[in-house]
Amino acid sequence: MTNTDSFLAEAADLLGARGLTADADLLAPWLTDWRGRYTGAAIALASPANVLEVAEIVRLCARHGVPIVAQGGNSGMSGGATPDSSGKALLLSLRRMNAIRTLDAEARQVTCEAGVVLQALHEAAEAQDLRFPLSLGGKGSATVGGLISTNAGGTQVLRHGSMRALVLGLEAVLADGQIFSMLTPLKKDNRGFDLKQLLIGSEGTLGIVTAATLALLPAVAERVVIWAGVSSLGMARKLLLHCEAAAGDALEGFEVLPQACLEAVLDHLPDARAPLAEPHAWHVLIEVVADRAAAATLRDRCETMMAEAFEAELVEDATMSASEAQAEAMWLLRESISPAERARGPAVQHDISVPVEKMPDFVETTIPMIEARWPGTEAIAFGHLGDGNVHYHAIAPKVTDGPAWQASEGKAISRYVHDLVTEWGGSISAEHGIGQLKRDELARLGDPVSLSMMRAVKQALDPRGLLNPGKLI
Amino acid sequence: MTNTDSFLAEAADLLGARGLTADADLLAPWLTDWRGRYTGAAIALASPANVLEVAEIVRLCARHGVPIVAQGGNSGMSGGATPDSSGKALLLSLRRMNAIRTLDAEARQVTCEAGVVLQALHEAAEAQDLRFPLSLGGKGSATVGGLISTNAGGTQVLRHGSMRALVLGLEAVLADGQIFSMLTPLKKDNRGFDLKQLLIGSEGTLGIVTAATLALLPAVAERVVIWAGVSSLGMARKLLLHCEAAAGDALEGFEVLPQACLEAVLDHLPDARAPLAEPHAWHVLIEVVADRAAAATLRDRCETMMAEAFEAELVEDATMSASEAQAEAMWLLRESISPAERARGPAVQHDISVPVEKMPDFVETTIPMIEARWPGTEAIAFGHLGDGNVHYHAIAPKVTDGPAWQASEGKAISRYVHDLVTEWGGSISAEHGIGQLKRDELARLGDPVSLSMMRAVKQALDPRGLLNPGKLI
Repeated sequence: MTNTDSFLAEAADLLGARGLTADADLLAPWLTDWRGRYTGAAIALASPANVLEVAEIVRLCARHGVPIVAQGGNSGMSGGATPDSSGKALLLSLRRMNAIRTLDAEARQVTCEAGVVLQALHEAAEAQDLRFPLSLGGKGSATVGGLISTNAGGTQVLRHGSMRALVLGLEAVLADGQIFSMLTPLKKDNRGFDLKQLLIGSEGTLGIVTAATLALLPAVAERVVIWAGVSSLGMARKLLLHCEAAAGDALEGFEVLPQACLEAVLDHLPDARAPLAEPHAWHVLIEVVADRAAAATLRDRCETMMAEAFEAELVEDATMSASEAQAEAMWLLRESISPAERARGPAVQHDISVPVEKMPDFVETTIPMIEARWPGTEAIAFGHLGDGNVHYHAIAPKVTDGPAWQASEGKAISRYVHDLVTEWGGSISAEHGIGQLKRDELARLGDPVSLSMMRAVKQALDPRGLLNPGKLI
Repeated sequence: MTNTDSFLAEAADLLGARGLTADADLLAPWLTDWRGRYTGAAIALASPANVLEVAEIVRLCARHGVPIVAQGGNSGMSGGATPDSSGKALLLSLRRMNAIRTLDAEARQVTCEAGVVLQALHEAAEAQDLRFPLSLGGKGSATVGGLISTNAGGTQVLRHGSMRALVLGLEAVLADGQIFSMLTPLKKDNRGFDLKQLLIGSEGTLGIVTAATLALLPAVAERVVIWAGVSSLGMARKLLLHCEAAAGDALEGFEVLPQACLEAVLDHLPDARAPLAEPHAWHVLIEVVADRAAAATLRDRCETMMAEAFEAELVEDATMSASEAQAEAMWLLRESISPAERARGPAVQHDISVPVEKMPDFVETTIPMIEARWPGTEAIAFGHLGDGNVHYHAIAPKVTDGPAWQASEGKAISRYVHDLVTEWGGSISAEHGIGQLKRDELARLGDPVSLSMMRAVKQALDPRGLLNPGKLI
């Protein structure tokens, strides 16, 4: 019996038939990331039923020296949950652990297992007249464990922060199979290093998230979505400052897109209409919300806010949703940017951030640089201006062999964009994480002191390097 | 020349006369913590002028194997900034680094050095019609570096979080003298482990904080302070839930004290009056604030909130501040609890938290247990109910030799309280940190998995144990 055979036999004993398979057909869908960029191989797919089984399988892996790649919904953006091609790793799915253990509506807290899908979490909160204020495109597949491991962002970060701001308690299995069990939420706890935050966003390289206690908020009782046309991205930033001052904490979204992006969306959605009559250099989607206590005055406050914006000549034109249907129609335009861009042709994509106040200058300075250096390429930026985070795409020249162009130019363009971002004091990964996609770029451009600290921490907590090897660092 | 002499000569060369002294009279005030609990000794007092000098002196210490105790205002609560008695450590004061480097009113960010005193930070923000929303009793001496290193709390944590929630960027010197330089604030940055949060709250054991970029908020344009009498701590918790639902983010403080505490304060402050006509089992101080955008409706919203509270029979009586002077008079009562308690006689003090929803049961269950086990002792709890954090004191029986009682009973009472807190899923240090005061208790009661993770991280980042030895872990 080879070492692999004896490992598989012991693992099967431990997890039973439902918990372990080496069947190639069953494994296949989970060995390629959803964007189809990476394909790996695995010794088997383990699907433990609870944290004790996770701990036992991790201990078994430690004994046999088998690396572990944890996976949630397999909808990550950076290949962080796809094993390498060696076939030596165990793929550890958390999807079977999908119980919502408790939901305390009074304390506004939910404790759920890592495999709970974001959509299911939303629904559980809504049933109690509450909400979980983080949402993103992959909500039908993204799991709580994956969202925590990648510190996921989304469209509501402006007000509520990334995933790490919403995690009150955490349970994880460490590299040696010990269970880190800090689910009980304490609003104040000053007993040493913040290990919870260290595990959040570590992409499965320091521990495997098995459960979490998350913060819930009162349901939104009223929301207003405003679509505004502005003359420049600098003007959009001025409008952002105005809205922050006028709406305060009620401001929940502030997204920007250039005219070309809107046109691509309108081409892509035959039934959609432009919200404003005329074209504008930049468009802004503003979301303002209120819970029941503040709902009555929300619309008046938004009208005052926009009247002042007109008076100060911050906006060229604007319209306000009069119904939920109109609000959703505006958001549909925003959410359709990615599919519309994909339909236009191949593109090199970047998820970057710079300090919010520098973003307008950054975009206006660097877009012409890219288009000059790669003639025929069109560079666009859109997204979360309120967070200083835009998705920054370089679209291939028309009539191009996409894969060939990606292969010949993609890497050079990304390096160039990442160099520029670094020069401007920004981040080469604002919300998508590092995974395998940006590991080399992080090693090339990351702060050397931070990188050496990260390597030291990784070495300390996973000395044999068995947790998600080849990812992040 | 001994090793010490050569170290001192090199250090003097490096830092100059202003930057280094071994004069016993100059050192003395900084070798005892402000509460007078701990006195240590040091080889010298270094006061570097900038981060480069900090880095150089740390490298010099590394070469000579000299331990380093970093110190800000020396107003910590757990002896974390007081060296041990061996006299081998260098006391490294950050007080000379007290520049506010930049304050960007538009972006609401301030970058300041570690030695900036909290009061000075408040004033700099106020001059720009902004505020820094963390305050505490020691604001006239506490420094930004100390507040960050201990993840300080205070009375506004309910709404704005502890210090760690307000730090946007950080600069620190590591054990080997490398400079961790992450001052540029990015709202979104997903490049690996959250090293900034790892350093915050690490009490100078992983690095020495030299500067930070902090979040500012719009100035408070209007505030209302409400004093309410309630029949039990459980009722106070119901009132808290009501206020959270009614006031939402405007609720900034929710403090509780029992009748006996109020009486002690009134004895201590001859000019003060009880806010309510009758005694009540528990008193609640509620602060509700609004910036300019929301100021107009604040008072109406508070009146509705309290009318509903009366109707639901949550409160027995209540009064609302009609002026800033009245608001301040109510806060003075709250802030005088500690001095009033000290005037009453010796006490064993604890800074504890349990999940907010469990706090009423915890207090009502455990106070009689202490008083039964130590006859004549009076146990009281007061403070931040909104955070699940109370200061929990056992007051010595009347006519007691304080120091003798502290010596004979203090440790046993603390162990008993900490056992109870741990049993209830709480923390033995909610906001004061571990320092040297609670190090043994953390080792005794802390989660073994967390402790082993902390030791591994400490070993990884400070393998020779030169940063603040004998503290925290």
